[in-house]
Amino acid sequence: MKIPVVKDILNANDQVAAENREFFDQNNTFVLNLMASPGAGKTSFILATVDRLPAAIRPGVIEGDLASSIDADTISGRGVPVVQINTGGGCHLDAPMIRSALPHLPMAELNLLFIENVGNLVCPAEFKLGADLAVVVASVPEGHDKPYKYPSMFAVADAVILNKADLIDVFEFDVDYFCRGLEMVNAGVPCFVLSCRTGEGVDDWIEWLLERRQG
Amino acid sequence: MKIPVVKDILNANDQVAAENREFFDQNNTFVLNLMASPGAGKTSFILATVDRLPAAIRPGVIEGDLASSIDADTISGRGVPVVQINTGGGCHLDAPMIRSALPHLPMAELNLLFIENVGNLVCPAEFKLGADLAVVVASVPEGHDKPYKYPSMFAVADAVILNKADLIDVFEFDVDYFCRGLEMVNAGVPCFVLSCRTGEGVDDWIEWLLERRQG
Repeated sequence: MKIPVVKDILNANDQVAAENREFFDQNNTFVLNLMASPGAGKTSFILATVDRLPAAIRPGVIEGDLASSIDADTISGRGVPVVQINTGGGCHLDAPMIRSALPHLPMAELNLLFIENVGNLVCPAEFKLGADLAVVVASVPEGHDKPYKYPSMFAVADAVILNKADLIDVFEFDVDYFCRGLEMVNAGVPCFVLSCRTGEGVDDWIEWLLERRQG
Repeated sequence: MKIPVVKDILNANDQVAAENREFFDQNNTFVLNLMASPGAGKTSFILATVDRLPAAIRPGVIEGDLASSIDADTISGRGVPVVQINTGGGCHLDAPMIRSALPHLPMAELNLLFIENVGNLVCPAEFKLGADLAVVVASVPEGHDKPYKYPSMFAVADAVILNKADLIDVFEFDVDYFCRGLEMVNAGVPCFVLSCRTGEGVDDWIEWLLERRQG
């Protein structure tokens, strides 16, 4: 008797991620998977970006959290379509969760979708969702050693955001050391040093994003 | 034919955790499992504590990281016995990893052991290590909503540290809101608001720790 074994749960996830991707392409929606530590500022980063988009870009958001709808409420308060996924303790979003969330968004009207992953600098890196870009949001208070300590996350990034840059002096944050670590695990990846609070540096990110979206 | 199935990997872990605990008890070593987001200040918290311990307390440290020995080098530079566990990408420490690390420490000389878990506010909560206390280190820059968003971690804490308290005003951090969330998921858990940078509030934590150790 042959016993069926699911050899690789990631393969099953990747299959659904590919289906999500096909749907996004057909729908002409450009999709970002935002990953970060808890409290790095993913939601603030979404809002800072949304505030500066040209009128032709119509954004939506999928919020991932273990519990609560705090971030979704914030996003919704700005008039942006949003759906909350509660993982019920799960440490990452996966492709089937994204698929289940899509019917709750007005996808036909959206051409840019932010997926805010669970705050976790480890596990989300392993699960493809079907996004166009993986964006890792680091923040100054976390310290300049993060690319050295969490290489697997920084290795999968298509772009890295260094948020809370207005506090570089307060935290004696060594940007060169951070960038050298980043270069070590992901050579050539663009890194945007910015502050969602002051707005400093956000325009460079927007410009790059819009170019990639045209790509 | 009966096919053996490992029903619950956590059971296997708990068994080794119980063995670790027995070893610690026999060795008269009081053990803390420190859990936190990346960059909350676990290593700074260990150093701030070690600096203020009475001479009779002889501490040691197990450092858990995906990669690098940055934190272990810092601890070692202070003359504290330390061993580094690299999980090679793994998102948490488990009890067998702790067991493997112990022969590399002069356990007979140590009566206090800090285990610095991987920076992750989700997964480490599920894996017992055999420690006497689970201590969760939160930090002001992460935001005051963390107990609401990561309830499973705060629920397992025997004590919560709110670090980087010197920046409460800079981040408009609402301590009451934080404490209400904490109370919701873990009623009565002690919370120490302190700053490892300025030393403010650390003595209260030391006093509590020494009392618990006497137990």
